[in-house]
Parts: sequence; structure tokens; C-alpha cells
Amino acid sequence: MNGKHILALSGGAGGAELAAGLAEVMAPGDLTIAVNTGDDFEHLGLAVCPDLDSVTYALAWLNDSERGSGIKDDTWQAMTMLRGLGEEAWLNLGDCDLAMHVARSWRLRAGETLSEVTARLARELGVEHDVVPMSDDPVRTQVLTGNGWVDLRRWCMTGQSGSAVSGVRFAGAAGAKPSPGLARALERDDLGAIVVCPSNPFLSVDPILALDGVRTALASRQVPLIAVSPRVDGTSVNASRTQIPGDWGQAVNNAAIARHYSDILDHLVIDNADEADVLDLEALGLKVTATSTLMREADDRERLAREVVALAGI
Amino acid sequence: MNGKHILALSGGAGGAELAAGLAEVMAPGDLTIAVNTGDDFEHLGLAVCPDLDSVTYALAWLNDSERGSGIKDDTWQAMTMLRGLGEEAWLNLGDCDLAMHVARSWRLRAGETLSEVTARLARELGVEHDVVPMSDDPVRTQVLTGNGWVDLRRWCMTGQSGSAVSGVRFAGAAGAKPSPGLARALERDDLGAIVVCPSNPFLSVDPILALDGVRTALASRQVPLIAVSPRVDGTSVNASRTQIPGDWGQAVNNAAIARHYSDILDHLVIDNADEADVLDLEALGLKVTATSTLMREADDRERLAREVVALAGI
Repeated sequence: MNGKHILALSGGAGGAELAAGLAEVMAPGDLTIAVNTGDDFEHLGLAVCPDLDSVTYALAWLNDSERGSGIKDDTWQAMTMLRGLGEEAWLNLGDCDLAMHVARSWRLRAGETLSEVTARLARELGVEHDVVPMSDDPVRTQVLTGNGWVDLRRWCMTGQSGSAVSGVRFAGAAGAKPSPGLARALERDDLGAIVVCPSNPFLSVDPILALDGVRTALASRQVPLIAVSPRVDGTSVNASRTQIPGDWGQAVNNAAIARHYSDILDHLVIDNADEADVLDLEALGLKVTATSTLMREADDRERLAREVVALAGI
Repeated sequence: MNGKHILALSGGAGGAELAAGLAEVMAPGDLTIAVNTGDDFEHLGLAVCPDLDSVTYALAWLNDSERGSGIKDDTWQAMTMLRGLGEEAWLNLGDCDLAMHVARSWRLRAGETLSEVTARLARELGVEHDVVPMSDDPVRTQVLTGNGWVDLRRWCMTGQSGSAVSGVRFAGAAGAKPSPGLARALERDDLGAIVVCPSNPFLSVDPILALDGVRTALASRQVPLIAVSPRVDGTSVNASRTQIPGDWGQAVNNAAIARHYSDILDHLVIDNADEADVLDLEALGLKVTATSTLMREADDRERLAREVVALAGI
């Protein structure tokens, strides 16, 4: 560690795991985790921020890694009651998770920004590193289905994900400003590297890149940009999303990911199981490192984070 | 039963118990329970309606009669989390109770009236009788303290109730219309009696009487108005509220209750323990019945309700 700062871009699931790993190996002041908010939606009047919560819970050691979202050892009393009251039950909110949404929602309604609320919630949960939303402006990742544009998260979670998707858009991204925390991190003199965590490039990272000025800032930066591929052995670790092809019709594989990030990517970290991809990826002009990218245990996320930090020369 | 309709006016606690008793002895179409909403308040962005919930839970056999509010056998996971998130914890919301507030709040925000939401929630909980808010317009019962006007429920529940109170007001009551359900019940041709349930006359029943036209309608009606006193043996069953004197400086006893309702009351039901009050009360021109008004068991509420219905000649 030489005091250089890392900016990590993350979605949920695998991204959140690596973000938490980075928090274990970086000092609090040396890491900013900017999180996708394109999956955010309102449900039962509550502001639900799936990726922000996944990252915050992972950093607070509260995440339910078996379910892939929510809080471990949560209970379901309120959900049972909501179902009994005839409310939509497709979003299975645990009691503690629900409390998080209640706290966030009322503070947003009271006028706090999403950045302020996110910082407050993370701090109260004992998180010392900066977890910031990608933007305080609403951006909604939506898929075009037979029923028109539908919020991605609702589409994934209401069992519609078997239906055909003919487009993805990040509604509101044009004109949405990076959050103060993301903007500050991009401008830091001591910025040492940017790490794209292993979240879906097309659905969870692209919304961040689609914000005003972010892709340009990344393309013109002087520090390495290292992406960790969410692919392991040819499949996405987060299987529910593999049904949406990247770039519409193009398979989501490491080559597609590399091409998609071509203007900003220096170094792609892939799983050992995909080592056969290395030569092709290097032919695209990238540095490539194959390692174990699966994070099943807490040790895994710390080890992978340590490797990524080392690759960044920090 | 001869098909006559009863309109019951109720607050929470003892009022809710008698309301539930009436629901046990009256057919669903023959009873309207109009409930005080002056205690309603917003907490953590949620619309909390203590008396409506007390009545609905009592009718649905869900009420926690030991705590005097909320749902029996509820759990406290969300509350523990909210406390961990640094949110105000003076209102100890159970998980199922919280779900009720979430469902109500989002539907109110979506544009449903309180009457519509209340009917929906009651129906989903299996309640067949009409439970209606006194009004769809916001009315707030507030007490004047050294810190100015404070919502009654917050004052009661935040441990401030030891401080001096120099006034009570029902903010918003002037100009607030009775809810459609209350207005309809007042105008029914088959109205047989009005029952004022054993809630605090000055704090829980007065807000109903303060609505536009209600006290006048009650004073000019052709059917008996029977009130069940909340006093048992000289003390209120709902002790937390006895510290607020009725009519400012006047003690809350059966004589005070009788005088307070003098323009509308025909018949006062008091507890056997207060039988010594009978002669004085009769001297005020009232019919008086002494019976056991304590409702500790479900049988008690049904028995008392049956007696009240008989007194009404229904």
C-alpha cells in the first residue's frame, strides 16, 4: 500500500463480493466503491436499491451469499403478512432488509440525496469505506419485452425472464450526473487504478459508464483499468442474467466483454477455467491474468482483491 | 336482532374490544364501526393509524390484548434493524404490524382514500363488518406542552407524558368531513342505536364529534345513544391517558363524562365497581346501567356487547 486510491465500479452479487474483498485489503480512505443504481425500483412504496444493498451488506458482513441478495439469517414475518394483505409477493423481502428500505425511503422523501442516505446507512452498519451510488439522479435499466419496456429487476424477479428481450436501455442515464462521490474519485490526484468488479458488463456496469462524462473520463484517465470477468468456465456466476445476451445477439463471453470494454480496458482478469481464452484476449491488445475468480468463502474475496490490487501496482 | 343498524364510535384499546364484541353479536350488514383517526401520525414515512388498527386487529382476532396494541405473537426483527440503522425507536413496531403500515402507506400514496385502504386491509384480514375511519381528511389530536403543540400519540409514547399539558386540539377537524361510511351510517333509515365505545371521551371520541356536522347529527337523531364508560372503579382502564384531565382541570369521572356528552347522551353504561355513581348520574337525566365493563377475555366483550345491544332495544 502506498496510499494510492482505487475506484471500484460494482453491481451486486460477484461485484459486491470483490468490492468487499477490496475493502478488506484497502484502508478506508483509499477506496471508493461506486455502485450501479440502474436496478433500483420502487416496490410497495419503498425505494429498493438491490446493488447498493448487496455491496453494503457484503462490506458489513451481513450479506446472504447463499441467496445472493438480502441479509443472512433474515426472517419473513412482514412478508407473510404482506402476502396475507393481498400485496404483491414476488419480491421476497426479509424483515431486516425491509427495515433498510423503510429507513432509506423515508429519508429520501425527507429530502436527503441517495448519496447521503447510502452513506448514513453504511456508516450505521459499521462500514468504514466509501460506498456511493453511481448517481443521485434516477436511472432505470429496462428491457424491451413483448409488453414494452419493463424494469430489469422486476423482469428478472417476476418469472418473466423466459420471455424474449429485444433491447436494453438505461432510462434517464443521458443527463444523469455521476454522484459527488464518484465524481470526486474520478478526479483524485492520487487515483491509482480503476477496478471493474465481476458484475454483468452489459446490465450492471454499463449504466455507470452511460452517466454523463464517465466513459470519457475513464477513456482519458492515466491509471490502469482492470476488469474482473464475471464469467467462470463459460457461464456467468449469476445465472439469472445470462439469458440476456450482451450487445443483442452476441454471446456473453470473455471476448465479448473485452470488445465491449475495448476503449477503456487495460487488463482483464479471467477465471482459470477459461484459461483457453488468454491468447485470443491478448490478441485484442489486453493484459490478461487467469486466476481463481470464484468467491465462495470470505478468504476468496480477500485473496482475489489482493491479486487485483497487486496487478494495479498498488 | 330485527335488522336494525348500529353505528359504533370507537377509539382503540377498550373501545376496540367492545367494537369486536359488537361484531360478534351483529350481522355484518348491521354494524358500522367509525374509528377515531386523530391519533394517526407519520413515522419513518409510514402512515400509522393506531385506533383503526386496534379495531381491525380486534375484529380479526389478531390483537395483542396484553400490550394493548399491535398484533399478538408479533416479532421485532425489523425494529431491531431500524434501531441499528440509527432510526427513532420509540415506536416499537412488530414485523407484522410494520407490514400493515407499509401496505397502507403505499396505497395512500398511490391515491386510495383512507376509507378504501381501511376496507381493503380489513377485508384481506377476514373482517366482514364495516370498519371505517371517522374521516378521510387528516385530523390530528395534539396536546399543548412546554414545547408547543405535539401529536398526542407521540407525546404518549415518547415518555413525555409526565410533562404538563395545557390544552388539547383536534387540528384539521374544522372542515373535515365524516368519511363516506360514517356519513352513510348517520343517514340510514334503519339506524337503531349509536354506541360510544369505552374509549377516552376527551381524546378518542371527541375528535369524531368534532367533525363537520357530526355532533349536530347525533344531537338531532331519533335513536338512543348509549355510551360505555371507560372508567372502572374510578380509574381509566387505559391508564396512560388518565394524566390528561378532561375539560382541562376537571377530573375524568363518570359525572364528567356524562356532562361532557350531555347534549347527545341517553344512556350511560358504567362498571359495577362505580355503582355508587348511579344516583348522581340519573340526577343528570340519564338512564344508567351498571354492569361488568372490564373485557379481559373474549367472552367478556361478547357479553358486554350483547347487553349494550339489548339496552338499545335491538
